[in-house]
Amino acid sequence: MSDSGFSADDHRCMARALQLARRGLYTTHPNPRVGCVIVRNVQIVGEGWHERAGEPHAEVHALRRAGEAAHGATAYVTLEPCSHHGRTPPCANALVQAGVKRVVTAMVDPNPLVAGNGLKLLQVAGIETASGLLESEARALNPGFISRMERNRPYIRLKMAMSLDGRTAMESGESVWVTGDAARRDVQFLRAQAGAILTGIGTVLADDPSLNVRLTAEALGIQGEVRQPIRVVLDSELRFPPDARLLNIPGETLIYTCSANDDKIAQLEQVGAKVRRFDAKKLHLSEVMTALVEDGITEVHVEAGATLAGALVEQGFADELVIYMAPHLMGSSARALFNLPHIAHMQDRLALTIRDIRAIGQDWRIIASLS
Amino acid sequence: MSDSGFSADDHRCMARALQLARRGLYTTHPNPRVGCVIVRNVQIVGEGWHERAGEPHAEVHALRRAGEAAHGATAYVTLEPCSHHGRTPPCANALVQAGVKRVVTAMVDPNPLVAGNGLKLLQVAGIETASGLLESEARALNPGFISRMERNRPYIRLKMAMSLDGRTAMESGESVWVTGDAARRDVQFLRAQAGAILTGIGTVLADDPSLNVRLTAEALGIQGEVRQPIRVVLDSELRFPPDARLLNIPGETLIYTCSANDDKIAQLEQVGAKVRRFDAKKLHLSEVMTALVEDGITEVHVEAGATLAGALVEQGFADELVIYMAPHLMGSSARALFNLPHIAHMQDRLALTIRDIRAIGQDWRIIASLS
Repeated sequence: MSDSGFSADDHRCMARALQLARRGLYTTHPNPRVGCVIVRNVQIVGEGWHERAGEPHAEVHALRRAGEAAHGATAYVTLEPCSHHGRTPPCANALVQAGVKRVVTAMVDPNPLVAGNGLKLLQVAGIETASGLLESEARALNPGFISRMERNRPYIRLKMAMSLDGRTAMESGESVWVTGDAARRDVQFLRAQAGAILTGIGTVLADDPSLNVRLTAEALGIQGEVRQPIRVVLDSELRFPPDARLLNIPGETLIYTCSANDDKIAQLEQVGAKVRRFDAKKLHLSEVMTALVEDGITEVHVEAGATLAGALVEQGFADELVIYMAPHLMGSSARALFNLPHIAHMQDRLALTIRDIRAIGQDWRIIASLS
Repeated sequence: MSDSGFSADDHRCMARALQLARRGLYTTHPNPRVGCVIVRNVQIVGEGWHERAGEPHAEVHALRRAGEAAHGATAYVTLEPCSHHGRTPPCANALVQAGVKRVVTAMVDPNPLVAGNGLKLLQVAGIETASGLLESEARALNPGFISRMERNRPYIRLKMAMSLDGRTAMESGESVWVTGDAARRDVQFLRAQAGAILTGIGTVLADDPSLNVRLTAEALGIQGEVRQPIRVVLDSELRFPPDARLLNIPGETLIYTCSANDDKIAQLEQVGAKVRRFDAKKLHLSEVMTALVEDGITEVHVEAGATLAGALVEQGFADELVIYMAPHLMGSSARALFNLPHIAHMQDRLALTIRDIRAIGQDWRIIASLS
């Protein structure tokens, strides 16, 4: 299961398969991004990637292109081939039927209940298998899919914009614009990757945001229409305004509430919202996580105020922080990055692992995770 | 006065002179760091740099090493040669006497009243002169010296340590340690460059700091003893404790106060402090700046709390911010980076120019200036 037994050619071919998988970054949701390369006599004879849910898997595309040349070939797949009948027949069977001699995967199926079944099916058919080649790169492609399978909750990416002194808005709430054009455009690519964009009712009431993807298919490098992530608004008391901008633009809006106000629910549903009611006094983030998975959402992009963002951090749900730091000082009366009022001692501060810092236009983007 | 007329050889030689000048980074204060290279027939025949105030200037060292070879040579000097008798005779005369044919300087004397006199003296003697080669690099070597000459105030470098969310200490004041070993060691090099380390009485009372250079001569790459920058404490009401650690370690401590308490002044002077009294109700930063220059201080390293640091920023005295950002969240109850309570609107936020961001051990160092 380690890289050690793989040749330089193996690495090169899997790197190509990962590159192909990445082409599905903005389109495969809720399915994983998967790439496949078929190689015979050190020649690529077929390649493919999963493009959209419901359409053929990467292996099928690659095998089609390889045709007869797949016989005796090696298949490189970024994810263990499926062994079950879903919307499409199992890919493991397709590989057997095509007569490939060897299958190399970057990672096994992250669902612990089915992990290894695809490889076993291949082995039983006499196909040589190996797994774990460039595994961390493959995992990074599908954080939402993996999170759902391994933890039964979505992967949460928190986007924030702050000044160098850690402030997100003036005391009055004024915050247009903390960061520059380039940073705001960069955020568009993060939104486009996500299955859902999550926010709190406070942000909806204060900013009346669109929370949509405004990039063209060309800018995203994709064929066909741009997928709009589902907008999910946490709104315990159902204060959502029926004339909110979210309901007047393409894309689905889902409201999570604890309110039993059936009239308001009916009113909102009439103007296009979907409302999910929770049987509780207020929304609990752990229940929100379960609901998101039930609603088919695995990769969540959060754009929220300090309260919701702080709660996600404090309760350990913030898997990744993407913080755009503007070259400004907004001062000590301005609003805090996260509402985290309970840290009283240095030993209680929250440790981060900083994965990347780079300039995005005039601003700096910091990618970090809670250690 | 621009780089345009200079050859690649000129650039190479001046770059070498700048490299030599840098060797005086920790030792020449209050004099500028200056390097000199003497070149004849594309061969370096002599080089030197100013090492310590009172000792010979860079040109004299270089001419001595060149000897007869200086005749007909080109001299590259990072700063216009002096034309006045100070503690040493004028270097312009020495260059004339040595018979050099051409003198190239990176910058003219920053004192507007004497700028160009050294070059004129050379020209009158029939020596070809040129200036402005790698000028910005040369200016960066001597920010304090230039600031004193051009603005009659010191260059102020503000060092801060903060968490990623812009906090410097817990609500209680607890702040040991915001940053890691590597960052704290990096700060030692900044201290060693400075003519003085400035702080407020609040920091002295709260932390009883040493504010000294704890690096060895070897670590600094210098010969001889490590120079301790003067410590300057702003203390309007003269609350300075006579048993403060600052008075029990090598190095001079200067207290700026408005207090007329002669007994306390005498007491502090008896235990080694120097006290400068201001005839005012409280210390004004503009008067502090003038006093620093009068006390022979041109390059100031500030390690202070949010109040003094905020006032320096607000009043436009903070020329450079060096902020060590730790990979932690300290939360919204923790203390702000700068006490800047008066910024109420986005348009009033303070713009920064970020010059450099790099990893220092586990932390990140941000160098910025107010735009």
